[in-house]
Amino acid sequence: ARIGFGEAIYCAGKSAAQVGAILESDPARSLLLTRLDAAKFDALPTPVRSRLDWDPVSQTAWQGDPAPVAGHSGPRIAIVTAGTSDVPVAREAARTLRFSGHDSTEIVDVGVAGLWRLLDRVEELRRHEVVIVVAGMDAALPSVIGGLVPGVVIAVPTSVGYGVAAGGRAGLDAILASCSPGVTVVNIDNGYGGACAALRVLNAMTRLSKDHSS
Amino acid sequence: ARIGFGEAIYCAGKSAAQVGAILESDPARSLLLTRLDAAKFDALPTPVRSRLDWDPVSQTAWQGDPAPVAGHSGPRIAIVTAGTSDVPVAREAARTLRFSGHDSTEIVDVGVAGLWRLLDRVEELRRHEVVIVVAGMDAALPSVIGGLVPGVVIAVPTSVGYGVAAGGRAGLDAILASCSPGVTVVNIDNGYGGACAALRVLNAMTRLSKDHSS
Amino acid sequence: ARIGFGEAIYCAGKSAAQVGAILESDPARSLLLTRLDAAKFDALPTPVRSRLDWDPVSQTAWQGDPAPVAGHSGPRIAIVTAGTSDVPVAREAARTLRFSGHDSTEIVDVGVAGLWRLLDRVEELRRHEVVIVVAGMDAALPSVIGGLVPGVVIAVPTSVGYGVAAGGRAGLDAILASCSPGVTVVNIDNGYGGACAALRVLNAMTRLSKDHSS
Amino acid sequence: ARIGFGEAIYCAGKSAAQVGAILESDPARSLLLTRLDAAKFDALPTPVRSRLDWDPVSQTAWQGDPAPVAGHSGPRIAIVTAGTSDVPVAREAARTLRFSGHDSTEIVDVGVAGLWRLLDRVEELRRHEVVIVVAGMDAALPSVIGGLVPGVVIAVPTSVGYGVAAGGRAGLDAILASCSPGVTVVNIDNGYGGACAALRVLNAMTRLSKDHSS
Amino acid sequence: ARIGFGEAIYCAGKSAAQVGAILESDPARSLLLTRLDAAKFDALPTPVRSRLDWDPVSQTAWQGDPAPVAGHSGPRIAIVTAGTSDVPVAREAARTLRFSGHDSTEIVDVGVAGLWRLLDRVEELRRHEVVIVVAGMDAALPSVIGGLVPGVVIAVPTSVGYGVAAGGRAGLDAILASCSPGVTVVNIDNGYGGACAALRVLNAMTRLSKDHSS
Amino acid sequence: ARIGFGEAIYCAGKSAAQVGAILESDPARSLLLTRLDAAKFDALPTPVRSRLDWDPVSQTAWQGDPAPVAGHSGPRIAIVTAGTSDVPVAREAARTLRFSGHDSTEIVDVGVAGLWRLLDRVEELRRHEVVIVVAGMDAALPSVIGGLVPGVVIAVPTSVGYGVAAGGRAGLDAILASCSPGVTVVNIDNGYGGACAALRVLNAMTRLSKDHSS
Amino acid sequence: ARIGFGEAIYCAGKSAAQVGAILESDPARSLLLTRLDAAKFDALPTPVRSRLDWDPVSQTAWQGDPAPVAGHSGPRIAIVTAGTSDVPVAREAARTLRFSGHDSTEIVDVGVAGLWRLLDRVEELRRHEVVIVVAGMDAALPSVIGGLVPGVVIAVPTSVGYGVAAGGRAGLDAILASCSPGVTVVNIDNGYGGACAALRVLNAMTRLSKDHSS
Amino acid sequence: ARIGFGEAIYCAGKSAAQVGAILESDPARSLLLTRLDAAKFDALPTPVRSRLDWDPVSQTAWQGDPAPVAGHSGPRIAIVTAGTSDVPVAREAARTLRFSGHDSTEIVDVGVAGLWRLLDRVEELRRHEVVIVVAGMDAALPSVIGGLVPGVVIAVPTSVGYGVAAGGRAGLDAILASCSPGVTVVNIDNGYGGACAALRVLNAMTRLSKDHSS
Ligand SMILES: Nc1ncnc2c1ncn2[C@@H]1O[C@H](COP(=O)(O)O)[C@@H](O)[C@H]1O
Ligand SMILES: Nc1ncnc2c1ncn2[C@@H]1O[C@H](COP(=O)(O)O)[C@@H](O)[C@H]1O
Ligand SMILES: Nc1ncnc2c1ncn2[C@@H]1O[C@H](COP(=O)(O)O)[C@@H](O)[C@H]1O
Ligand SMILES: Nc1ncnc2c1ncn2[C@@H]1O[C@H](COP(=O)(O)O)[C@@H](O)[C@H]1O
Ligand SMILES: [Mg+2]
Ligand SMILES: [Mg+2]
Ligand SMILES: [Mg+2]
Ligand SMILES: [Mg+2]
Ligand SMILES: [Mg+2]
Ligand SMILES: [Mg+2]
Ligand SMILES: [Mg+2]
Ligand SMILES: [Mg+2]
Repeated sequence: ARIGFGEAIYCAGKSAAQVGAILESDPARSLLLTRLDAAKFDALPTPVRSRLDWDPVSQTAWQGDPAPVAGHSGPRIAIVTAGTSDVPVAREAARTLRFSGHDSTEIVDVGVAGLWRLLDRVEELRRHEVVIVVAGMDAALPSVIGGLVPGVVIAVPTSVGYGVAAGGRAGLDAILASCSPGVTVVNIDNGYGGACAALRVLNAMTRLSKDHSS
Repeated sequence: ARIGFGEAIYCAGKSAAQVGAILESDPARSLLLTRLDAAKFDALPTPVRSRLDWDPVSQTAWQGDPAPVAGHSGPRIAIVTAGTSDVPVAREAARTLRFSGHDSTEIVDVGVAGLWRLLDRVEELRRHEVVIVVAGMDAALPSVIGGLVPGVVIAVPTSVGYGVAAGGRAGLDAILASCSPGVTVVNIDNGYGGACAALRVLNAMTRLSKDHSS
Repeated sequence: ARIGFGEAIYCAGKSAAQVGAILESDPARSLLLTRLDAAKFDALPTPVRSRLDWDPVSQTAWQGDPAPVAGHSGPRIAIVTAGTSDVPVAREAARTLRFSGHDSTEIVDVGVAGLWRLLDRVEELRRHEVVIVVAGMDAALPSVIGGLVPGVVIAVPTSVGYGVAAGGRAGLDAILASCSPGVTVVNIDNGYGGACAALRVLNAMTRLSKDHSS
Repeated sequence: ARIGFGEAIYCAGKSAAQVGAILESDPARSLLLTRLDAAKFDALPTPVRSRLDWDPVSQTAWQGDPAPVAGHSGPRIAIVTAGTSDVPVAREAARTLRFSGHDSTEIVDVGVAGLWRLLDRVEELRRHEVVIVVAGMDAALPSVIGGLVPGVVIAVPTSVGYGVAAGGRAGLDAILASCSPGVTVVNIDNGYGGACAALRVLNAMTRLSKDHSS
Repeated sequence: ARIGFGEAIYCAGKSAAQVGAILESDPARSLLLTRLDAAKFDALPTPVRSRLDWDPVSQTAWQGDPAPVAGHSGPRIAIVTAGTSDVPVAREAARTLRFSGHDSTEIVDVGVAGLWRLLDRVEELRRHEVVIVVAGMDAALPSVIGGLVPGVVIAVPTSVGYGVAAGGRAGLDAILASCSPGVTVVNIDNGYGGACAALRVLNAMTRLSKDHSS
Repeated sequence: ARIGFGEAIYCAGKSAAQVGAILESDPARSLLLTRLDAAKFDALPTPVRSRLDWDPVSQTAWQGDPAPVAGHSGPRIAIVTAGTSDVPVAREAARTLRFSGHDSTEIVDVGVAGLWRLLDRVEELRRHEVVIVVAGMDAALPSVIGGLVPGVVIAVPTSVGYGVAAGGRAGLDAILASCSPGVTVVNIDNGYGGACAALRVLNAMTRLSKDHSS
Repeated sequence: ARIGFGEAIYCAGKSAAQVGAILESDPARSLLLTRLDAAKFDALPTPVRSRLDWDPVSQTAWQGDPAPVAGHSGPRIAIVTAGTSDVPVAREAARTLRFSGHDSTEIVDVGVAGLWRLLDRVEELRRHEVVIVVAGMDAALPSVIGGLVPGVVIAVPTSVGYGVAAGGRAGLDAILASCSPGVTVVNIDNGYGGACAALRVLNAMTRLSKDHSS
Repeated sequence: ARIGFGEAIYCAGKSAAQVGAILESDPARSLLLTRLDAAKFDALPTPVRSRLDWDPVSQTAWQGDPAPVAGHSGPRIAIVTAGTSDVPVAREAARTLRFSGHDSTEIVDVGVAGLWRLLDRVEELRRHEVVIVVAGMDAALPSVIGGLVPGVVIAVPTSVGYGVAAGGRAGLDAILASCSPGVTVVNIDNGYGGACAALRVLNAMTRLSKDHSS
């Protein structure tokens, strides 16, 4: 697209045949695929499938080489999860960033029910310019991190949970209602969107430093 | 009522005339009044009004003497608020307890957006057998306290907030979805109910110790 | 966790492989497993599975010996259900308590549509310091019991029902709106949480009696 | 209307001028007015106002003579409320019945939080062919009565309550989800509708007995 | 139950083994079973299954003989559906009535989109003392019938529909908001409840005529 | 705007000062104002106010001359209401059409609870190419009209009603779920939008006939 | 039906046997079938199936010949989709129109995230008298098209999406709240209804031109 | 707070007396006040009031000097509104930024219903590193801008609107469901939060450039 994000295909609403056709239409093109589950991946024609780097945890894949990782001068991005059930969404974010040429630090299972585990990592967290927080259930973690970290905090609520938490709305609303100023949020389970929000910060930084050096 | 709670009158749905009539019907009776706002209090007949101990913050009053405060042997109760806007609900709980013969410790404005303020009070909190946590907005505080305190944690969500937090449902759901095990909840803004839940714990303790000493 | 509850694994969001890995990492460790359905239990490696005490009704299991049951001096806990369909949630509570060293009395199918069945058990119920009430559909039972029992009443709404009752929200809201003072509630279908709330009461009692005897 | 109910004017959405015009257009016509609050009643032209029998509690009025009350041979109708705040809605039902020529028995403040007060009245209740149950908050009362009374049970949820009960949806859903078979419900605060449902039962009975005697 | 309805078993939340055990515990007892789908019916032990009269459309069954149908002197009951997809719910009502000794007239597919089909049946409908209206989607049919029929109108919304109609809430709310006075409603898809409401009317009529003849 | 609708100002979110400024900036410009209540109208500067044609029922006004009404060759538009409380919304539609040079036929109080009143007008209704149906409460009227009229049917739900009907969502959903094919809907209380939808039909017709005559 | 639409069978709520019976009852009758999925189509008896023109994308079929396509003098209809996942719903609309004798222009994947693709087609779009816009997720496309096209704009929200978009309500509400005047909407996923709304416009045009030529 | 944002007082839940007390407790302290309406501002003691820079549009004020505006080397921030009714929320954001030492560009009334007005400003918008988009009703504007601008896009939904848009949930959900990748959102009407999210981006940039120059 014209704003510089790499091409991404959302596979949840497409048949294996449709996904295969897109991939075959231009085998040399660099493409990110999200929500590609095992059944759909297995149903792809062998030549197409063998060109893909597929990750079962995040259900993402890419065709072609991902962008090379930039050197050590860029901003640091952390991806934090409240529980282990939030890892697939976190990994979707990490893979989207990697496809776009950015590494990230993954910190898992530091939800607020065991606050000491989070407190052990706060100094490490504060060294990152951008923190993506992935949390289901009550999603109290983004509020707490928002009060501890001065940089960009992007929350991704997940649909992990049952009862009033089922579907993720309770967590989403808790984040939006957070008293920690300036925490922003994307759609439930939208690890891809959380990563793109981080990429927008990188876009802004790159642009600004170009302006200044010119 | 037959389960031993003192008589309480919920005034929100009654006219000043109706409240006055109840109070006049038995001037010697010990009664707690909740949701009695200034206008309704002012509209009561002078003799009735002068018999009341009215508190403008919590909009509660009592007629007659409250139960005497038990000595130092009983359980300790803390009432904690996330913000200053949650104080009226917390005070309704404190006044209900006092009417029933129990003091409580009030700790205000220790919401998770300023986590260090809460951490400074954790040891103090852990010394209480029962903690009532009053919180609006995202209501992340009960989850955090539930993970730090081993005793009884009763959460009272409040309607403080706007946007998705308006009305208090977002906070209520966050508490119910909490990962901290065994945190319980009462209705939004129900400080009276939070205090009664604490009184049930006291009832249980009293009964048990009587059984044992008998 | 640092507040003294035994370690519990929520298996709903984990694969059999993940559950197996946790159990194998420390075969001697005492662990409670909840939401472990038959398919996942059967998919565990035989040596792991044979170490487990699994209950098909509640879909709970434990590895290692549960805590020994304390003598007759402690508080009595009752677990009551409105209908037979609420039994799995009630059993999750009972098993959590047993894992933690506490017996409980189970009273089933005393919903308010057949009030006489409940009235026959009221005296028995009142002899318990803590009553956990498990109810789906309209969840009118906790309101009624709350008005009859002076001790702690913890309500667990269930997702049993259809139409407006589907998912359990109708029952949850009815309990929160209850006129019986001091009834508290946990998330829908959260038998584990109801039991933990009871354990917090026991924690508080133990602490208090230690203080007094010291 | 062609189904035999008397003409009723719902005044909430009409100005005093509009209500006055309707009443003046045919001063001899028998009319029931609902949701006519004091301000609107006071704003009516004096000759119109003086022709009305207005009741401030239910905010109903009628012009002309109500139907004469039938003798003792017809079915008995009881109107029961859970709390005193539900009385205005109950009175709207009673006045609608009276306007149509039927008396009713009013039983107030027998909500389930004080079950013994209800149990004292059960035999009396069972002697009525039709019971209209008016209840706010958790609206557990219709479920309990539905299990005790064999005749027609019509529930009218009210908007009395706060937090999750605000607006009356929690109570409405609880009634619909009730395990007591055959309890039916009308819209929140719709005392008029509850009475009309009772009138339909009377219509059916009248028709049937006419058929048989012919 | 003590209010005179026959015993009914709601099978949706029970396993075939549990249903079988109930039936075997007293093979001579007259029992109605609802929500018994083909798979569960087929899984019952052969001797139990052969004692059942099972209807695949309504997924109801009964053990033992239904009550004998009363003669021609009782009230007439019609069961009307808006579309053919509403027939299973209507049949659950018809079977519940038949089990209790009452016939009913079934009128299907007279929804308001084809008003003339309804108008052709109005005179017939008006000859019934009780009309049960079963409707999904927008559930406009009970409003229209409520304006045309003077007797008892009991509406049963169904979950038939998609988009905003999915689950049946849109139809339920439309009925509750109906301008036709005195239409009552039961839970979504609750054909059993609609029939029980009709039985309550019959109970009331029987009682009244007994009183009068005594 | 570039699609040919006249300029319209939505006054609900603007102060009298802001509305006045817009009108004064170009006194010769033809403008429609909606949601201009009496207080705001009265607060306008006298010269501005005197240039306005204000209607208290619909709370609309226009500055300048409305478009001249086209001759008898164009399509006929009817505006129908279920009740008299729906008239303000209907009038907003009628005034929007008149401002744009189109007359319309107003038919009020033909809701489905009194079906015979509607049936008396069906032939008249069918003579109109476009029917705008304005209805609150259960909004069953658009479904019924949609099944009787072959031309364009545009439904405008209103917020008239209480309980489950409060705010208008119940009626909106009922219309969307309607079985009458091809009925379309605009936002609750949006009489302006309903009229604009009719204007789009007129635009289409005008364009087509121009194409053909050219 | 009497308003001139061809007969349509909604197959989602019917078994293959029921659909087969309808088709066999009159093999010569022209019928449209919607929501006929592959499994149900395959389960039809061979002679019936062979008479059908079935389309797997839209899951529609027709028996008999569709109406002949009218010449070039009628209005032009475009069907636009935001994404490729919206195509099945768009195709349901196109097939309904074709069955009724009308061609349509299909324009896919012009959602607002890639605005330039839409802008390239605006002139083409403006040449159509009727535009049906099919969109899921945030459904911003109908708002944008409504501001660019003067003719009839009928929006069909789809259930494409996840998180807050799941089920289609977010998109539906966005369309209803649109600032573009006169955009109308039908139920979520209701391609059939969107086409019928267009047919009503054609009905109105045909009628008007007949009137004028007579 | 410890993350470097200036102190902000949310006045909506505080009395004038409470706000006055906070301001008087340290008259030299730099403070931002939000949601301070005219009545509350006027009720402040004169000396306090005279120290405040109050803005009636945004209902914000500050005590003390705001931070000096940084030179031209920093990132550019634009604040865009869909309509004029969204200006108060936008101004809250602009004032929060100014208090923190940052200017911003305000672009108003470029909602998607008049797309050409937005297109005229796209090049200007793309020159900003951070764009805050404030929109009510359907909130389609953030989706469109998200597809046109590569930098950071922070959406602030507003409660502007009626019917399904009332309260702002429809717009909030539309933004969350947006197909434009990486658009983030804060709570409804939270201009303060939108500005704080921008400040976090600035924090991140400052930190990174310090790291590099060190
Ligand atoms: N603020 C409150 N919130 C909830 N319940 C209350 C409150 N105050 C009193 N109550 C309960 O309401 C009952 C009295 O209701 P009433 O008879 O209507 O005055 C008391 O017995 C209490 O159980
Ligand atoms: N289809 C049904 N819908 C609602 N309630 C039902 C239904 N079938 C049976 N019941 C009620 O559920 C009760 C039995 O519940 P259970 O003891 O769980 O089988 C019966 O006494 C009936 O009142
Ligand atoms: N996909 C569809 N969505 C909504 N309504 C439909 C659809 N297909 C057919 N219909 C309507 O449903 C009616 C047929 O319903 P039925 O008699 O149940 O087959 C038709 O007359 C159409 O008006
Ligand atoms: N308009 C606002 N919306 C949301 N949060 C705010 C707003 N204004 C101030 N705050 C936050 O609320 C906190 C102050 O709350 P309080 O201590 O209750 O005044 C500040 O630190 C801000 O983070
Ligand atoms: Mg964990
Ligand atoms: Mg604070
Ligand atoms: Mg039972
Ligand atoms: Mg009472
Ligand atoms: Mg049909
Ligand atoms: Mg009328
Ligand atoms: Mg695309
Ligand atoms: Mg504008």
